[in-house]
Amino acid sequence: MEETLFRQELQKRTAAIEELLKGYLPAEEGYQKTVIEAMNYSLMAGGKRLRPMLMQETYKMFGGDGDIIEPFMVAIEMIHTYSLVHDDLPAMDNDEYRRGRKTTWSVYGDGMGVLAGDGLLNYAFETAFRAFPACTSGEPVDPNYPRVAAALNILARKAGIYGMIGGQNADIEAEEQAEPLTTEQILFIHANKTAALIQSAMTIGATLAGATDEEIAALELCAYNVGIAFQIQDDILDVIGDSKELGKATGSDAQNHKQTYVTLHGLEESGREVERLTGEAVAILDSFSGEHEFLKELLLHLVHRTK
Amino acid sequence: MEETLFRQELQKRTAAIEELLKGYLPAEEGYQKTVIEAMNYSLMAGGKRLRPMLMQETYKMFGGDGDIIEPFMVAIEMIHTYSLVHDDLPAMDNDEYRRGRKTTWSVYGDGMGVLAGDGLLNYAFETAFRAFPACTSGEPVDPNYPRVAAALNILARKAGIYGMIGGQNADIEAEEQAEPLTTEQILFIHANKTAALIQSAMTIGATLAGATDEEIAALELCAYNVGIAFQIQDDILDVIGDSKELGKATGSDAQNHKQTYVTLHGLEESGREVERLTGEAVAILDSFSGEHEFLKELLLHLVHRTK
Repeated sequence: MEETLFRQELQKRTAAIEELLKGYLPAEEGYQKTVIEAMNYSLMAGGKRLRPMLMQETYKMFGGDGDIIEPFMVAIEMIHTYSLVHDDLPAMDNDEYRRGRKTTWSVYGDGMGVLAGDGLLNYAFETAFRAFPACTSGEPVDPNYPRVAAALNILARKAGIYGMIGGQNADIEAEEQAEPLTTEQILFIHANKTAALIQSAMTIGATLAGATDEEIAALELCAYNVGIAFQIQDDILDVIGDSKELGKATGSDAQNHKQTYVTLHGLEESGREVERLTGEAVAILDSFSGEHEFLKELLLHLVHRTK
Repeated sequence: MEETLFRQELQKRTAAIEELLKGYLPAEEGYQKTVIEAMNYSLMAGGKRLRPMLMQETYKMFGGDGDIIEPFMVAIEMIHTYSLVHDDLPAMDNDEYRRGRKTTWSVYGDGMGVLAGDGLLNYAFETAFRAFPACTSGEPVDPNYPRVAAALNILARKAGIYGMIGGQNADIEAEEQAEPLTTEQILFIHANKTAALIQSAMTIGATLAGATDEEIAALELCAYNVGIAFQIQDDILDVIGDSKELGKATGSDAQNHKQTYVTLHGLEESGREVERLTGEAVAILDSFSGEHEFLKELLLHLVHRTK
């Protein structure tokens, strides 16, 4: 796909997801108004909406064409958002700004930052439950029930202690650790803090479209590769990137004596690893017969970005 | 039921729920070990386990006798626990001790306190999803699916912005409010911060046992009454209680200029309101034909406690 065309398609899809999210925002009213305002402020902070986009594209690749995917697209973005809100807290990274915009706690206060994150995580599940088919007693049970149940299992598992929260725990401990990190530790952090939600997005899309267990397992590996490649690329850019283009300071990892895949394996080997992981991810995608041209471009774009 | 017998039964049931919880604890291992330790430390802090107990008793009253209830009993206790863990944080109430035991953040640190609460909320849903019937494609869908879906909806709704988190928001704002609280505000806080999880417990029990919509609506009112009566009784005890028997300082509300139902309506009217609410709750319970002697005693015990 030609670069300009890809960017147009990306913008179009991001805009459509923004509209979808807006339709799912809880109303800012009642005695719970402030926490809802803080939740919506956090959720509407912009971004490319990559996780819902990956979910939707994977759903379409496997022939999905219903709206059962929508509550899950919104839910995964709420989970991603809550993790940023809590990460930014004074008790965690103590960040007052994120992408040039005040973070939730620095607008609404410390306690409300905790509560807004909790609200988003809880509301993510409330929202995902909207995918349950309606069923009144006496009616036969809709065969979509098991698919929704399987998708919910993925959503919770990949966000929790065996996914994102597990990665966050390892990351916090790595920062306090005196001895050098191992490659295993670094890969654990990337696999769980970053790749888990990409896996969640892609495998939920496939599950709701009725993909087989084998297809889902292959996608899980594909998404793992993308997540790890993305993070190694991040570390590479920290060393070689142009700070103006990147929009943030480079060389910060070295300054902070932060150990990364690049400090352990060097730039050259790291670059080769990004290529290997990406090649494998693309090969997996290409093994599926469903249409996935945009999805493939999106994965390549993620991994090969220069900023 | 005779008082000694009731206390024996209460102890027996509490012990059984402790055992159930232990069986559901995630293993403390891997790179996520610390957050899991902090979660388990929080969950095993003791207490009467009232919410799972109310859920189980209501389930039994409507003829439920399967183990589909168990994951929900564990899940609601995890949700209750996470709310305490986050309430105790320096960003919220800044409590170092709870019932004479160090709070989670004061043992594991501030950031880990946030993460352990997140972990518990997320794991509550992971756990509740274990109630989904197994279903492999080709098999007819189990009729329990709609019941589990309905129970999940209740679990999330009553814990979120239209339940516990909404009440927490109103409570935080009430503390910062210059003008006097209204009765409406106080009742909103009690209804959401306290009654919502009692409603959740009882209506989930009924839903999983196959109760009708009318029965569930009646139980929702019953649980509301119990929650409000419990909180008004709390305020009464703060004024008249014996601090030795109560195990905490009394008169603290007056000292903190905290407005309560009692400061607005006086001791006598408040006492009458507790009786009215309790009478209505018991009348609702007695309208059901299922066995509920222990459940009734439990509700009366909650509301009429002197400490």
